[in-house]
Amino acid sequence: NEKRRKKLVIDTDGCADDVRGLILALQSEEEVLAVTTVAGSTNVLQAVANVARTLRAVGRPDVPIYKGANASLLLSTRRTDALFFFGLDGVGDSPDAEPKALAADVDAAQTDKPGAVALVELAAKYKHELTLVCIGPLTNVALALKLDPNFATNVKEVVIMGGNVWGCGNVPDRSTAEFNFHCDPEAAHIVLDEMKCPMICVPWELFFLEGKKHEQIVDFHAHLMMDTPLAKYLTAVTSVGRTILAADGKQFAYCDEIAVAIALRPEEIITDSKHLKASVELHGQMTRGQVAINWFDDAWPKADPSHRPNVQFVTSYDALLVDKMVHDAVAKLILDTN
Amino acid sequence: NEKRRKKLVIDTDGCADDVRGLILALQSEEEVLAVTTVAGSTNVLQAVANVARTLRAVGRPDVPIYKGANASLLLSTRRTDALFFFGLDGVGDSPDAEPKALAADVDAAQTDKPGAVALVELAAKYKHELTLVCIGPLTNVALALKLDPNFATNVKEVVIMGGNVWGCGNVPDRSTAEFNFHCDPEAAHIVLDEMKCPMICVPWELFFLEGKKHEQIVDFHAHLMMDTPLAKYLTAVTSVGRTILAADGKQFAYCDEIAVAIALRPEEIITDSKHLKASVELHGQMTRGQVAINWFDDAWPKADPSHRPNVQFVTSYDALLVDKMVHDAVAKLILDTN
Amino acid sequence: NEKRRKKLVIDTDGCADDVRGLILALQSEEEVLAVTTVAGSTNVLQAVANVARTLRAVGRPDVPIYKGANASLLLSTRRTDALFFFGLDGVGDSPDAEPKALAADVDAAQTDKPGAVALVELAAKYKHELTLVCIGPLTNVALALKLDPNFATNVKEVVIMGGNVWGCGNVPDRSTAEFNFHCDPEAAHIVLDEMKCPMICVPWELFFLEGKKHEQIVDFHAHLMMDTPLAKYLTAVTSVGRTILAADGKQFAYCDEIAVAIALRPEEIITDSKHLKASVELHGQMTRGQVAINWFDDAWPKADPSHRPNVQFVTSYDALLVDKMVHDAVAKLILDTN
Amino acid sequence: NEKRRKKLVIDTDGCADDVRGLILALQSEEEVLAVTTVAGSTNVLQAVANVARTLRAVGRPDVPIYKGANASLLLSTRRTDALFFFGLDGVGDSPDAEPKALAADVDAAQTDKPGAVALVELAAKYKHELTLVCIGPLTNVALALKLDPNFATNVKEVVIMGGNVWGCGNVPDRSTAEFNFHCDPEAAHIVLDEMKCPMICVPWELFFLEGKKHEQIVDFHAHLMMDTPLAKYLTAVTSVGRTILAADGKQFAYCDEIAVAIALRPEEIITDSKHLKASVELHGQMTRGQVAINWFDDAWPKADPSHRPNVQFVTSYDALLVDKMVHDAVAKLILDTN
Ligand SMILES: [Ca+2]
Ligand SMILES: [Ca+2]
Ligand SMILES: [Ca+2]
Ligand SMILES: [Ca+2]
Repeated sequence: NEKRRKKLVIDTDGCADDVRGLILALQSEEEVLAVTTVAGSTNVLQAVANVARTLRAVGRPDVPIYKGANASLLLSTRRTDALFFFGLDGVGDSPDAEPKALAADVDAAQTDKPGAVALVELAAKYKHELTLVCIGPLTNVALALKLDPNFATNVKEVVIMGGNVWGCGNVPDRSTAEFNFHCDPEAAHIVLDEMKCPMICVPWELFFLEGKKHEQIVDFHAHLMMDTPLAKYLTAVTSVGRTILAADGKQFAYCDEIAVAIALRPEEIITDSKHLKASVELHGQMTRGQVAINWFDDAWPKADPSHRPNVQFVTSYDALLVDKMVHDAVAKLILDTN
Repeated sequence: NEKRRKKLVIDTDGCADDVRGLILALQSEEEVLAVTTVAGSTNVLQAVANVARTLRAVGRPDVPIYKGANASLLLSTRRTDALFFFGLDGVGDSPDAEPKALAADVDAAQTDKPGAVALVELAAKYKHELTLVCIGPLTNVALALKLDPNFATNVKEVVIMGGNVWGCGNVPDRSTAEFNFHCDPEAAHIVLDEMKCPMICVPWELFFLEGKKHEQIVDFHAHLMMDTPLAKYLTAVTSVGRTILAADGKQFAYCDEIAVAIALRPEEIITDSKHLKASVELHGQMTRGQVAINWFDDAWPKADPSHRPNVQFVTSYDALLVDKMVHDAVAKLILDTN
Repeated sequence: NEKRRKKLVIDTDGCADDVRGLILALQSEEEVLAVTTVAGSTNVLQAVANVARTLRAVGRPDVPIYKGANASLLLSTRRTDALFFFGLDGVGDSPDAEPKALAADVDAAQTDKPGAVALVELAAKYKHELTLVCIGPLTNVALALKLDPNFATNVKEVVIMGGNVWGCGNVPDRSTAEFNFHCDPEAAHIVLDEMKCPMICVPWELFFLEGKKHEQIVDFHAHLMMDTPLAKYLTAVTSVGRTILAADGKQFAYCDEIAVAIALRPEEIITDSKHLKASVELHGQMTRGQVAINWFDDAWPKADPSHRPNVQFVTSYDALLVDKMVHDAVAKLILDTN
Repeated sequence: NEKRRKKLVIDTDGCADDVRGLILALQSEEEVLAVTTVAGSTNVLQAVANVARTLRAVGRPDVPIYKGANASLLLSTRRTDALFFFGLDGVGDSPDAEPKALAADVDAAQTDKPGAVALVELAAKYKHELTLVCIGPLTNVALALKLDPNFATNVKEVVIMGGNVWGCGNVPDRSTAEFNFHCDPEAAHIVLDEMKCPMICVPWELFFLEGKKHEQIVDFHAHLMMDTPLAKYLTAVTSVGRTILAADGKQFAYCDEIAVAIALRPEEIITDSKHLKASVELHGQMTRGQVAINWFDDAWPKADPSHRPNVQFVTSYDALLVDKMVHDAVAKLILDTN
């Protein structure tokens, strides 16, 4: 039933877990209309290249890529580097792994329009049909809102990997912000304050506080052992991070993949969540980029009925099911589009 | 064994739960050297009066009261009012309940020195012996640190009712700060950054997230039914809040009392806690006054060995034992000091 | 010599002094390629309508209007209202003055692209030729920079009415920001930090500190007494403000008109200026939106040779010449384009 | 007429220009009741030592010194170092110049009370008689206000060297704050917001914007050529700074001395000033510590009659008279108090 297929647009900074998330979406039953890229753990051109290579890996070079913002809204935003973990190219520094990285990959983006304009036009064209999956800093989405206020309602739903619900940060220098929101706090603020469609947020604490539990029930490296081209590609893509984590006795667990899996099958993946009124702090010395929840109205619910929850924060998810979806994606045959 | 008695100084804003906390300390085996007052839920003169009346209630008018700060360090700090809950006098608006409120109560403070100076001198006199229990905004303690840097190490230990560990706030206007820290964020920042002795913090979430569980195992009003003068006094003192909570089907649970109980018997009361590196955000629009935890070093422990935990946050406590201690305090005979 | 004509794009919030500035440009020898509108003293639709009416007033309905942003980058930015001064429609509340306001005026904008996209495309098309005159909040210009980093160098020069050089504000609530920068501090910050072409800033103090001097040498109302259609139109447009100022014994002097006059004839109008390194404060309680000058390197010039001046602040201008230009514009025949 | 003598207390960070200011006051007809020290360009112990040595230089070891704060209210305040200019000891690194620096100088402070407590007690004792001259960071004065709200009115008048009126800063890293206010923004904020007596502020711009004019009419080094012990002492004290300035073709002009001279003879020294409503920004990234003036009510005076000016900013002064006072002080015989 073609009509029932979800229409996804994935906004990504194109690093290792983004790649696995892209594969999850592209190998699913749903339709990936386009990929927009944004600077995050790597720069926006490298992100384009990594996405282009991944599209070749799954035989889908037809999916359009739009190059988005190469910096946060404010250049003065101090950013931190995650390339020690993902590799200098963001995908394991293995350019000779199949599909080989090509020099032309950086030119694979559509040249006629910036990522934010593409988001605006796709949301208008597929009004109330688009599932937007954001697995990088939110710069492009914020710009889309600024270019067209109707974007806020044209999109059907947004799933965001980023932010936090309990004030736990994962960047250095005493920040309480999560990496993606820390990269562009103003963008995250704009998106949380202005999107009017349902928003699902996969916060850092889902990983931080639930991670140990999941390590005991999931073998996050099992799918890499499969004898398929995608298993080999993902083995290369995750190689730098796996080496670092192995030194700590840890596995390279899922992160962006959770958000993609939720976009594909929300009812099954989300096992617990909280609907809360959330915004993003912009002015703190340590809390810049942190999500600020209005717990007061949760504690004293009569206080102000107008402070409606705007975000569904996922607080528990089915890690085994996400792992099964990854296995299925890696196992699935790749169409030869040539 | 007189020598083994703890020496307590209680810094308080003198409202209903402060009164119950004071009674807990004054009726215990330990020694209360002095009480210092600070503006918080009520003003500093009312706090002096409420403490004086409570000292009469337990037959201990000999305990010196020192009047501290009547405002936060910065007058521009926007404060919120909790008198709707505690009563206009902070203690249930029942001046005729025994012991009756006296006009002279507001003059009961020692006139020779401000609260902060008294703290400095007591800490120097009883070097490494003082347990400081803070159940109001931290203005006086911050000033003591500013007057005498040795105060940071002269004090043996500090127990603070205030702050948060998970970014949950309990004041209106979308703040993520806890009430006592919200009242004087700079003071809280100074205390967390500069005290060099062990600090135990009883955060708002202990109440917020654990409260429902405790309501099922503790009857927080049982001790008020006892036929003793202190039960009658506390019935009056908590009357306004109990009426408000009853409309929601809730009881008037313990808050400041937990901090006092921990100061008296820490090993038994604290059932779980986290040692973390914590500071207080001063510059956020929504997060001003929120505790900012350095979770990064907890998540990536190799990052910076110098970011040592400075605060022990209580994350679980024995509510039944606190309740038993309150019962014992209310039941205990009051010495006639006249 | 058609080739030597300047190519202007005017970004405006379409109120009374904007209208007079537009007339100055449109009646000059130079070419106005387009007008982009932005919310400021009035909303963006009213700004479109006021520009459209003004284009009819000068017989130039062919100049394209592009509708830009209807809000600052951050919706949480607290804005102040200037309609008490300009009239509810921003142009004197005289819809029946010639040319009459038409219902269709609000629809006069090009519908195919937002103002920021139009700026990007015009700057790319007329590379190194465009003089951008900004007489409203800088939201559109900031978005253009975010959509296309090349915008920073594609534009030939920018003249901005807004900001301050001596920390003097002109909005209420103890802000030290100038109105246009106060409306959208992040946008002003982005423009000052990222534009790479020459920037001329007409700060509020030019008006505030020099105003009394100019009132003695210029009769700011003289051109309104001329017997021409534009004199009558401007009489209507400025009517609300003139009434308010008359009560204080003051005239309705020039403001946005200065920036337009500088864009047309900079060497003659600017009689003194300072080249300084300037940015815009975003995080202050009172200084949010204020320009922050790096005076240190001016005082201690050896300190850091890399802190190059990025803005030319006009500190004195030829008010008589601006007045003469206004007279000429009002006197000049209007082409009948029908 | 002994009764008419002014009673001065000088709060100082004890560096080169502070020393010259102290000499100005101590050699005048007025009475210096006490000196309190504070960390600023040097630490508080060095400040005590420098003051003690200066008191010996003028034969006044009887004047009590009280040691104040050795840090700003918030330790997280980033401070800048001025010792490159004043010498490592803050007074020219010439310990063998007469009077020789003594090891005992660091112990010269009264040990019974901190500087802030001394200020509180002196202001209460000499109610409405005290002229407080502040030529360092305002930490001690802020603490005095926090310890005793009556301090705000007990003092007769305050003269402050510090702050700015036009947003010009003199510290590095793009700050718009003046050095003394930059050292302790919260203290400056408290003093400007809470003192209720007349406050005169000598802003940095008095030096920055008027300096060139004064260099043409005053020979700032002439008094150093006099054949007196104090001329020789001041020659040593200013030696490091004079060498640095000479490389730029500049003289070591007056700074703290202006504030002391104004405290001694305000009507004669102040030749122009502005009474304004001023506060200190605490939360800006670049403007933290800058004075924020409420110019709006100056521009639109009807707006809010309650925003009364609280500070008299000196915008012009009689540099020749200050220089004459310095000459007189250096020339005046020193009493032999032994
Ligand atoms: Ca990502
Ligand atoms: Ca309390
Ligand atoms: Ca305008
Ligand atoms: Ca000084």
